[in-house]
Amino acid sequence: MKAQKKSAPNNERLAEIYRTAAQIILRKGYDATSVNDIANALGMTKAGLYHYISGKKELLFDIMNFGLDELDEEVAIPAKAIPDAEARLRFLIASHAQLVTRGQGAITILVDEVTALTPAQCRKITRRKREYFDYLRDLLDELKADGRLQDVDTSAATFCLLGMINWLSRWFRQGGPLTAEQVASEIVKIALGGLLRPESRAAQRGLQVVKS
Amino acid sequence: MKAQKKSAPNNERLAEIYRTAAQIILRKGYDATSVNDIANALGMTKAGLYHYISGKKELLFDIMNFGLDELDEEVAIPAKAIPDAEARLRFLIASHAQLVTRGQGAITILVDEVTALTPAQCRKITRRKREYFDYLRDLLDELKADGRLQDVDTSAATFCLLGMINWLSRWFRQGGPLTAEQVASEIVKIALGGLLRPESRAAQRGLQVVKS
Repeated sequence: MKAQKKSAPNNERLAEIYRTAAQIILRKGYDATSVNDIANALGMTKAGLYHYISGKKELLFDIMNFGLDELDEEVAIPAKAIPDAEARLRFLIASHAQLVTRGQGAITILVDEVTALTPAQCRKITRRKREYFDYLRDLLDELKADGRLQDVDTSAATFCLLGMINWLSRWFRQGGPLTAEQVASEIVKIALGGLLRPESRAAQRGLQVVKS
Repeated sequence: MKAQKKSAPNNERLAEIYRTAAQIILRKGYDATSVNDIANALGMTKAGLYHYISGKKELLFDIMNFGLDELDEEVAIPAKAIPDAEARLRFLIASHAQLVTRGQGAITILVDEVTALTPAQCRKITRRKREYFDYLRDLLDELKADGRLQDVDTSAATFCLLGMINWLSRWFRQGGPLTAEQVASEIVKIALGGLLRPESRAAQRGLQVVKS
C-alpha cells in the first residue's frame, strides 16, 4: 500500500486526505476523531480510506511529515537555487506564508502539536523543524556578515519570522479582505523592514525599478 | 468561595494554581488531566485545591480569563496612560512579550485553545481577544494617520505583531541564551523597524540620545 503513495494522482488524493483529516482533528481533537469521521468528510468508505492510510495511530505523524515535505519541496529546496541572500529571504517568507494559508492552516497548526506523537516520532518531527529553523537562521547570519541586517539577534529574529508566518494559520481565511498573495506580500514588507538595513532595502528597491 | 479570589495573598496563590494547571493541561491534554494531577503538582490536597477552583469544567475558562485579566492590567490599561502613540506601541509590545514569557507561556497557548469551551464561554473569550486586537489596530491606524507608519495593511500588521509575541510562548525558555527583557527588546526592534517609517524612528532615536 505504501507504493500507492508514489504515483501522482494518488499523491493529490493523499494531500486532500491529509488536509481534510487535519481540519477534523483540529476541530474535534485527535482522541475524539475516528477514521470513520475522516472517511465521511471525504465521501469515502472506511475501507476505501484504508487504501491510503495505515491507521489512525500513524496518521498524525504522516500528516506532519506531509506538511514538512511540502515545506521542503515548495519553499526550502527552490530557495536554495536563488543566489542573492536577500532575494532568497524574500522568496522564503512569501512562499512559506502562502503555503500556510492553504487548507485553513490546519496542517501548520497540527505540526506544532507534537505531544500526541510517540517519543521516536516526536524526535523526528522536531529534528526536521530544527533543520528548517537552522536554514533560516544561517541565511540571516549570512546577511548579517554582509552588513545587510539590522543589529538583531538572529535566533530571536528567526523565531519572529516563524511566528508571523505560522500565526497566519490562526487568522487567515480564504475569501477575507486580503488574498493569500496580498497577505504574503504584507508579511514580506513588515519582516524585511524589521530585519534589513534601510540602505540595503533602498538598493533592492532601486534594483526592482531598473528591472520593471 | 468566589470571595476568596479577591484578597491579595489568595490572588497570588490563584495565579500559581492557574499557571501550574495550564502547564499540566498543555502537557497531558485537558481530557486526560484530573483535578488530582493539578493538586499533586501544587503539593495540595484535592479538597484544598477546591477552595480555589469551582471544578475542572470551569477551570479552563477561569485560566483564560486570568490570562486576559493579566493582559489588561499589565499591558492594555497602563498603555492607555502613555500620550505618544509610538511610545505606547513600544510599551505594548515590550510588556506583552514579557507577560508571555512567564510560566513557560502555557497560559498564552491555552488562551488560543477555545475548542474545549462551551459556546457561551468561547464567545466571551473571543470577544475579549477581539477587543485587544482592535485596540492594537486602532493604535496602528492612529500612527498611519500621522504619517508615521510604513505603507502596510494595519490588520495584517496587527496579526504579525501578535504572531511574533504569541510565538514566544512556543520557544522562549527561562535560563536560555536571552533573558525575557532581551527577547522583548529584540521583538520591539524588529516590529518597530518593520512598521514605522525610518524618519519616525530616527526622530525617536534622537529623542533617546537627548534623554540619556
